[in-house]
Amino acid sequence: MDKNWNDIDVFAKEAIKEAGRKIIDSFDEVLKIQTKTNVNDLVTNMDKQIEKFFVEMIDKQYPEHRVMGEEGFGDQVEDMKGTVWIIDPIDGTMNFVHQQRNFAISIGVFHEGEGVLGYIYDVVSDELYHARKGHGAFLNDEKLSPLKDVPIEEAILSLNATWLVPNRKVDHETFIPLVHRVRGTRSYGSAAIELAYIAAGRLDGYITLRLSPWDFAGGKVLIEEVGGVVTDLNGEELSMVDHSPVFAGNPAVHQEVLNQYLKK
Amino acid sequence: MDKNWNDIDVFAKEAIKEAGRKIIDSFDEVLKIQTKTNVNDLVTNMDKQIEKFFVEMIDKQYPEHRVMGEEGFGDQVEDMKGTVWIIDPIDGTMNFVHQQRNFAISIGVFHEGEGVLGYIYDVVSDELYHARKGHGAFLNDEKLSPLKDVPIEEAILSLNATWLVPNRKVDHETFIPLVHRVRGTRSYGSAAIELAYIAAGRLDGYITLRLSPWDFAGGKVLIEEVGGVVTDLNGEELSMVDHSPVFAGNPAVHQEVLNQYLKK
Repeated sequence: MDKNWNDIDVFAKEAIKEAGRKIIDSFDEVLKIQTKTNVNDLVTNMDKQIEKFFVEMIDKQYPEHRVMGEEGFGDQVEDMKGTVWIIDPIDGTMNFVHQQRNFAISIGVFHEGEGVLGYIYDVVSDELYHARKGHGAFLNDEKLSPLKDVPIEEAILSLNATWLVPNRKVDHETFIPLVHRVRGTRSYGSAAIELAYIAAGRLDGYITLRLSPWDFAGGKVLIEEVGGVVTDLNGEELSMVDHSPVFAGNPAVHQEVLNQYLKK
Repeated sequence: MDKNWNDIDVFAKEAIKEAGRKIIDSFDEVLKIQTKTNVNDLVTNMDKQIEKFFVEMIDKQYPEHRVMGEEGFGDQVEDMKGTVWIIDPIDGTMNFVHQQRNFAISIGVFHEGEGVLGYIYDVVSDELYHARKGHGAFLNDEKLSPLKDVPIEEAILSLNATWLVPNRKVDHETFIPLVHRVRGTRSYGSAAIELAYIAAGRLDGYITLRLSPWDFAGGKVLIEEVGGVVTDLNGEELSMVDHSPVFAGNPAVHQEVLNQYLKK
């Protein structure tokens, strides 16, 4: 491998922190804006501006890398050849608009299809989750422990109410016995933060029915580095170039939920 | 009124901050403990220890006041005569055990049945929400704005998955059209934090089917001070000496959800 991943890691962290500051600075503007419509415009602008910031930084420093981003300022990425950055500039847009918190910057850097670096930055809490394959996962400077197996009766599952009422993606009745079995459910409204919580052991499982690669790329690297599992709802590997249902969890919960509830 | 509410307010805040430090200090012990059983014991101990701390402080400073607490170290309170402190030492116990965050200390101080002071302290985020009836509500030093009416289509509703699957408290199908109508749903696992989020405008509605007075006393004072509404699921006033279903929200969302979904 001819890459200096350490340099790329330092570069990525610096870019993420700078992007975070830009987002925080935008809050003053949010507070000035009175109507909802304009707030939505501002959010769209911030999403675009932050993605553009990353694309320009990466193009300059690593012109041979490609970038896949939600807002489309990067490259048209249809395969995972070479080095690909997969970026969500603001994951949890509804929280950004409504709460000015509980959103995150999410980045995964893949090389020949393999996740090498993963970042989730909860901007307002100033919590940067970061992992490098084979080198450990961290929350700021603190190393994250390997995930412990949790019995399903003691598990906390993140599952949004959307999937428990009739919907177009899934038979919502699949989840009824599961909700009854786990200790509790939560929903935070940002896939990136929910995946980071899995990596930190704060949640034991996360099920959602429609994510794009930029929503889960960073989280996948992070979770796998602490021994967790990220797949679709059949336990199959996720495509990094298409949207998917996603099921992430610690190994014991992932296997039991898959076998006893999802695969039925 | 012969009370010096300002003094009581200063006293309450100091006691809450000190209790918060005691809880944070206990985390070192949590990390040392290996088995889940012992963690649960520790939590039970912390709950009791913190409630005892409040009861002893209040008894000493205001011997004529009564205290109603989850753990039962206070008085047997069956009416709201005189001044009553209603205390939950750790609201969000499951989060405390599992996440060591997203739990809160909740206190409401009532005089002759009327909420005068309300406090919710998100210990780990160091966010102290506090209100005094007629004198404003605050998050730390920042004054909270009166709640704006939000159209239901733009509302974020906090509603746990538990109430969307068959359960003993409510016909879960009541909530299906409501979940379809709102912009999004969340669930944080601490009534106190969810009520504080309503007061701060981060959530627009919160529905739950079984709370005790210590779960909502602080939040009720806080929310009412910013113009929000806290009732049962029929829009009736909550009893302060019995458990209830609870529906809190900003005025527009509260009225519309009540009329169009809950009262049907």
